[in-house]
Amino acid sequence: MEVMKLKKPNIVILGAGYAGMITATRLTKQLGHNEANITLVNKHEYHYQTTWLHEPAAGTLSPDRTRMPINSVLDLNKIKFVKDSVVEIKREEKKVLLQNGEIEFDYLVVCLGAEAETFGVPGVHEYAFSKWTVNGAREVKEHIEYQFAKYNNTPEPQDELLTFIVAGAGFTGIEFIGELSERLPELCAHYDVPKEKVKMYVIEAAPTALPGFDPELVEYGMNLLESRGVEFKINCPIKEVTETGVTLASGDEIKASTVVWATGVRGSSIIDKSGFENMRGRIKVDLDLRAPGHDNIFVIGDCALMINEEINRPYPPTAQIAMQMAEVCATNIKALMKGDSLKTFKPDIKGTVASLGGKEAIGVVGTRKLFGSSAHFMKKMIDNRYLFLLGGPGLVLKRGKSPM
Amino acid sequence: MEVMKLKKPNIVILGAGYAGMITATRLTKQLGHNEANITLVNKHEYHYQTTWLHEPAAGTLSPDRTRMPINSVLDLNKIKFVKDSVVEIKREEKKVLLQNGEIEFDYLVVCLGAEAETFGVPGVHEYAFSKWTVNGAREVKEHIEYQFAKYNNTPEPQDELLTFIVAGAGFTGIEFIGELSERLPELCAHYDVPKEKVKMYVIEAAPTALPGFDPELVEYGMNLLESRGVEFKINCPIKEVTETGVTLASGDEIKASTVVWATGVRGSSIIDKSGFENMRGRIKVDLDLRAPGHDNIFVIGDCALMINEEINRPYPPTAQIAMQMAEVCATNIKALMKGDSLKTFKPDIKGTVASLGGKEAIGVVGTRKLFGSSAHFMKKMIDNRYLFLLGGPGLVLKRGKSPM
Repeated sequence: MEVMKLKKPNIVILGAGYAGMITATRLTKQLGHNEANITLVNKHEYHYQTTWLHEPAAGTLSPDRTRMPINSVLDLNKIKFVKDSVVEIKREEKKVLLQNGEIEFDYLVVCLGAEAETFGVPGVHEYAFSKWTVNGAREVKEHIEYQFAKYNNTPEPQDELLTFIVAGAGFTGIEFIGELSERLPELCAHYDVPKEKVKMYVIEAAPTALPGFDPELVEYGMNLLESRGVEFKINCPIKEVTETGVTLASGDEIKASTVVWATGVRGSSIIDKSGFENMRGRIKVDLDLRAPGHDNIFVIGDCALMINEEINRPYPPTAQIAMQMAEVCATNIKALMKGDSLKTFKPDIKGTVASLGGKEAIGVVGTRKLFGSSAHFMKKMIDNRYLFLLGGPGLVLKRGKSPM
Repeated sequence: MEVMKLKKPNIVILGAGYAGMITATRLTKQLGHNEANITLVNKHEYHYQTTWLHEPAAGTLSPDRTRMPINSVLDLNKIKFVKDSVVEIKREEKKVLLQNGEIEFDYLVVCLGAEAETFGVPGVHEYAFSKWTVNGAREVKEHIEYQFAKYNNTPEPQDELLTFIVAGAGFTGIEFIGELSERLPELCAHYDVPKEKVKMYVIEAAPTALPGFDPELVEYGMNLLESRGVEFKINCPIKEVTETGVTLASGDEIKASTVVWATGVRGSSIIDKSGFENMRGRIKVDLDLRAPGHDNIFVIGDCALMINEEINRPYPPTAQIAMQMAEVCATNIKALMKGDSLKTFKPDIKGTVASLGGKEAIGVVGTRKLFGSSAHFMKKMIDNRYLFLLGGPGLVLKRGKSPM
């Protein structure tokens, strides 16, 4: 009879992204085996590194290098893994509806990640690639290669097959076009396509690429990408995505059989569906990372909204902040269980590096600006540091990136 | 003043397939530099081995392994290469219209290869993959991988994405499904697709697969392919290829987003366009391989029709016969130039092997039936023997296939 077990609180983590995985590893370390039942719910049996996905999407890295089986990182003797999709959080009933069942919680960690933000532009879901997941990256890669393969098999040359539009010059858009433009010579050679036939556009509604980034770095990045054939259209909102390309606010059309949508993200649609007060799928969390009015529900990662008081704007939804939130969240759950007081969360932004493909990158670390190969080196270090935080030196050795 | 040059006859070879390449190598060897101007016209700068294309089409071999730059095999000091497409042969005017010019000939070798035979079935060109070329093979491969990549990204499972139909259980169809079925476990693993979701059909109108092949070998092949999940529909004509799959003569529909058309070939459409008497693009050639009524036009390879008197049926359009024709054609052109009598052509069929993917094949060599790995070994030997005939041992070493 497992009577004792009933007394253990149920801690349920929703989502195995950066926030969920770090929370899970920290909780399994900090809590003894008899202190709590910890459960992780995730749609797939694997965890993936969202910030690496521009590489498999452009075909410069195998998608398998960007994911790992959850049971290869977490000790499933200490945490229960449920492969299922979250349908709704029943806050008052303290349970979560899943596609194939339901699960009760005493403490809940909501880290369901982000979804593409369309800003109401019609046609995005129908005609653009907007899912930044392993499945989505694989689809973009195969779609691109299929367009190249089709090009020489059409009786009349269809140049739109070789036109690639990236909507949004933020981090994702820039990193993706960096990889694609770097790979272009190889693609052209493999498919017997003249390089001058390929057109790559990055279209951005804001007055600059990489808004908020250092202007000198932005200029370096744009010059580099332009030298590889990328054309920037800045200050240029997209009105609609269609079957044949995009229509700009000006009314002009650019024909393209590939449109990648990367204008930014919103939180998970489950947030709104579950009745939380939210802004674009994000919950403005308390300083201890709990949802307002809920003692036992933590919201971290891309679904959490926190204002940077210095500039009166929200912190961006980054992996870096998600992982820092996870550390505090795990600590606070343990404190709650013991009746201790909770820590407040304060992001500590160590730096930001955007890769540009090949050995190129731009970034800021501390107060230092980095260009080219030193920024590239730092980018690999950041990717490896995450693996270190998640699984220690063993995981870096097994799954890390060579910085050279 | 190049007065002497005008006296040299112009030998023009149309097409750089098996027949054209062997004719070119033999003529450049047999004729001295001052005896003739030899020109080879081909659409691409490369020659490819049509009989290998089921491998890149299924993704088991790089397409670059199935082709070679023409100038890497032929000595362009001895033969002129013109990269252009043939539009029409002006027989009486002794010239060939090309897309970008024209070329005069004293002797013409027509070896323009084959095109897909649709047998009047509607929708083949619109909805099926029927081009057995490097470009065509690349497109099939990328299309297949794209369907796998899409599968996990559709909200409702669309099983037709994972249904692959091969129309025709002849050599090409069987060899292609052999490669694809062999590669399937790898594809399923890479794209996270359950193997049982994948359906592979081979649909054949005739009462047997591989008509004309030894029944015991056919049974071996079918059993093997069935064990990999291939379903045969024999005696089952296709009425129409549609956007969503195929409609059978019975009225039944099979939904599939990939239909590969491999029901056999006809000769080049240039033959009919140029006013030659022909049957399905093939000219019933004289025994010396000339077109009836034309002293100076040889027709060899897939555009040549020759009756096997023993069974009163045409010899099949194979690489083996094309190469044997090329040897006789080169000899006969030299004989014509010297006023000697011409040789008659008689095929010497050494054997036939169909690969089934992996280390499996079936075949007949002489009177011996071969199965499994011995047939597989023989298939590689046949592939390498062609390279030997074309470019000697050096080409086998450089481009050959390991028989192990």
